[in-house]
Amino acid sequence: MRYFCRVSYDGTPFCGWQRQAGGRSVQQCLEEAATTILRHETAVTGAGRTDAGVHARAQGAHFNCEPIRDIGRFTVSMNAVLPPEIAVYGVTEVHDSFHARFSAIRRSYRYTICLRKSPLLAGRSWQVTYRVDWNRLADETAALLGEHDFTAFCSSGSGSRTAICTVTAASIVRENDCMVFSIEANRFVYKMVRSIIGTLVDIGRGELHLSCADIIERKDRSLAGTTAPPDGLVLDNVIYPEVE
Amino acid sequence: MRYFCRVSYDGTPFCGWQRQAGGRSVQQCLEEAATTILRHETAVTGAGRTDAGVHARAQGAHFNCEPIRDIGRFTVSMNAVLPPEIAVYGVTEVHDSFHARFSAIRRSYRYTICLRKSPLLAGRSWQVTYRVDWNRLADETAALLGEHDFTAFCSSGSGSRTAICTVTAASIVRENDCMVFSIEANRFVYKMVRSIIGTLVDIGRGELHLSCADIIERKDRSLAGTTAPPDGLVLDNVIYPEVE
Repeated sequence: MRYFCRVSYDGTPFCGWQRQAGGRSVQQCLEEAATTILRHETAVTGAGRTDAGVHARAQGAHFNCEPIRDIGRFTVSMNAVLPPEIAVYGVTEVHDSFHARFSAIRRSYRYTICLRKSPLLAGRSWQVTYRVDWNRLADETAALLGEHDFTAFCSSGSGSRTAICTVTAASIVRENDCMVFSIEANRFVYKMVRSIIGTLVDIGRGELHLSCADIIERKDRSLAGTTAPPDGLVLDNVIYPEVE
Repeated sequence: MRYFCRVSYDGTPFCGWQRQAGGRSVQQCLEEAATTILRHETAVTGAGRTDAGVHARAQGAHFNCEPIRDIGRFTVSMNAVLPPEIAVYGVTEVHDSFHARFSAIRRSYRYTICLRKSPLLAGRSWQVTYRVDWNRLADETAALLGEHDFTAFCSSGSGSRTAICTVTAASIVRENDCMVFSIEANRFVYKMVRSIIGTLVDIGRGELHLSCADIIERKDRSLAGTTAPPDGLVLDNVIYPEVE
């Protein structure tokens, strides 16, 4: 049987989603918890690999196992075995053809920038205290919408064949003492959101004299700005036609 | 000269707002930081004493000192000296008659209840997983509005002369996987919000067969429910006619 689940995590203590030597990953914790509870080796596949320190509200994942009799009890057990920084919910049986990564039609991310020291958002935000023209960045953000080749916002080491992504929503809004950037696309390339955020801030503070549209068009990573820190980034949702 | 400032803090590592022997308090950290930067003993007075583990988004405070030449620089220095869990902002000169506690006309609190394990809200919420009739609690919450004697929701040890408070706003709304309770009043008695929250949840889960209105009217603390944990509580704002 194949099961789908949602995974929420505080990425701070992890080396990222993906299992790797020399670090504790979210995937590893999930596989260990599932293996303990289901009493057989269980591999867990995620919708996407978040980097070290990046958080998730509703990552998607699937795993194969013997039929689970009581899904409610399984969920409670998983959450008891998992560390406090990881939770699963929305466990549901899916068709064998469902795949957490390949069945996803869209993903969305949120990035929070604090305009001052914010103890209640520590570890969940990037503190930007220099002067930034945020109004200008609303236009820059709108330029991301549509199908583009995001080579300029793709870090090396991704192994992707193509950097073409279709951005279906992009906004930057003020919420109290923060600027919250939201983006939804069919797919994202390696470190794309953090590269975009770092570039937007560089443009808004006048350190970078190019527009997002120019940078995208020239497909040159060296033209884009800095990569924003992982703390502010949350994988907010992964959208599937089949579930929810 | 008298100065006003806003204080935001993650209450987790503190014994509460107020200075006390045998624990590190927010007030003590502020006084130590101000004394370091201003180079003379500085006392800091807050609008209200939050309990151990309770957070604040916009606590109000005042202090007396020699004229501060550069308020922006003073704020930056304070935030550098303060621990990461405390920040000050909105420092402004006020009249000698201004008092952070007595000049405040209203205070507001937010309390976040998570309906499942939520790593991104750990330490900022109370996890309530038993079945609660939240719809019923909307009516119970509305019953708090107006002027009442909140003796039934006042823990002993407060030292208040009276428990009469005027509640100017009260709501409970769903936000994603949380229920967020907001309340604004001219004043609050000791542990009032946490007593109300614990009581609401007890009513909503059918453990307590009284309404909030009944409990208020009978003025008997033993009739109210449990006291909710501090983690979910944030002093959201303190409202002054003079500032902002």
